Amino acid sequence: MNKTIETILNHRSIRSFTERLLTKEEIRLLVESAQSASTSSYIQAYSIIGVDDQSKKRELAALAGHQPYVEKNGHLFVFCADLYRHHKMAMEKGEDIKESLEGTETFMVSVIDAALAAQNMSIAAESMGLGICYIGGIRNALNEVSEILETPEYVLPLFGLVVGHPANPSAKKPRLPLEHIYHENTYQVDEADIHKHLNAYDETISNYYHNRTNGKRADKWTEQITQSLKQPKRTYMHEFVKEKGFNKR
Amino acid sequence: MNKTIETILNHRSIRSFTERLLTKEEIRLLVESAQSASTSSYIQAYSIIGVDDQSKKRELAALAGHQPYVEKNGHLFVFCADLYRHHKMAMEKGEDIKESLEGTETFMVSVIDAALAAQNMSIAAESMGLGICYIGGIRNALNEVSEILETPEYVLPLFGLVVGHPANPSAKKPRLPLEHIYHENTYQVDEADIHKHLNAYDETISNYYHNRTNGKRADKWTEQITQSLKQPKRTYMHEFVKEKGFNKR
Repeated sequence: MNKTIETILNHRSIRSFTERLLTKEEIRLLVESAQSASTSSYIQAYSIIGVDDQSKKRELAALAGHQPYVEKNGHLFVFCADLYRHHKMAMEKGEDIKESLEGTETFMVSVIDAALAAQNMSIAAESMGLGICYIGGIRNALNEVSEILETPEYVLPLFGLVVGHPANPSAKKPRLPLEHIYHENTYQVDEADIHKHLNAYDETISNYYHNRTNGKRADKWTEQITQSLKQPKRTYMHEFVKEKGFNKR
Repeated sequence: MNKTIETILNHRSIRSFTERLLTKEEIRLLVESAQSASTSSYIQAYSIIGVDDQSKKRELAALAGHQPYVEKNGHLFVFCADLYRHHKMAMEKGEDIKESLEGTETFMVSVIDAALAAQNMSIAAESMGLGICYIGGIRNALNEVSEILETPEYVLPLFGLVVGHPANPSAKKPRLPLEHIYHENTYQVDEADIHKHLNAYDETISNYYHNRTNGKRADKWTEQITQSLKQPKRTYMHEFVKEKGFNKR
């Protein structure tokens, strides 16, 4: 197994960083790594906003659910779906591309583009010995986040990515059985198989929490996730993305 | 610069593969790499369908725009947004989670989850000396793709990823200027700056095509992309994703 795959398999989210900030050179290398990811038909439909202004970080941390690591880290990046440049350049050429920009297809393309770039940055950071954590919590309040970051129309902040020097180690969380995630030639819907996989996984996760909390917690994955999905979250999103110009038709 | 970052920066899409198939062990390692990516609140809202059935590959290649490399490669993976397991486990527990599953927020989560996993697989493959190419073309005809792969409700194929042993080298395509993609603290909308960046990039791309085609092509990026966005593509997507249970509210 090569070093890169070791890095990838060894991933765990880091939620506690030292005070040490990333250097300009590190930030540059991370952004270049992000940019090297594939992009749908060369469209490059994303942007990255790096935040080091401490008051902005504090505001974003409060919106994202008061997690201290959103404020205290080596650097905070916010990944955005971005069709603003495309809108601008078409306007300048006198072309109307609104129907494309505002379609669900292009929305998906821009979200995928941003995610591919972010994962490149994550692996690059981890290969440098840095830790990372995605911050979906900024989607709690995208209206406020957009104001803080001053994003224009056709720009949609999607998630944060904090990067820094790890202060505390964390454990690798077990994933669903490979046989459950990976299907051969057709999607397998065999009820008995799904049952078997999810039961085995529930046991794995229950043991994982038990060991990590000295027996205080023993949640099963299916329970944890079902409970979390029982409360619809961020229900404003459907309208909000449209207001920003995405996913309208 | 470490080996992993070298691999990341050296990315180029490969569109021509030898006949050599991936081994079972290689496929397993690639899927494990994909699974190691971050996942939003542990939801794991994606699946991967590996296709080695030659007739299915041929059908998918035809739907995706008759690119020979969709049929001829080391292995074809299809990444899907997947909430089917979540739907099933909630049903079994007698819980109603439809409002969550069908929201735009969860749609975004599942698309991001799938993309992060896919990019992990891409980097892992490239670190092994394999080549990759994303196949957005399957979104030309997701209804037919869903039938071929027999995906149930709450599963949405997003893109293919072909992996294999490169037959022909390809060139690294230059990306937008870093200063254009990367913003500091707030999104920069200075018209003059945007102009400067896009003009410089157009020249870079024009030279790139000129050199690669012995002067036959000299497209500018802003022209190429504007032309492509003038024709709305895959306009059925807005309704289709809803039919599959996503992005409804």
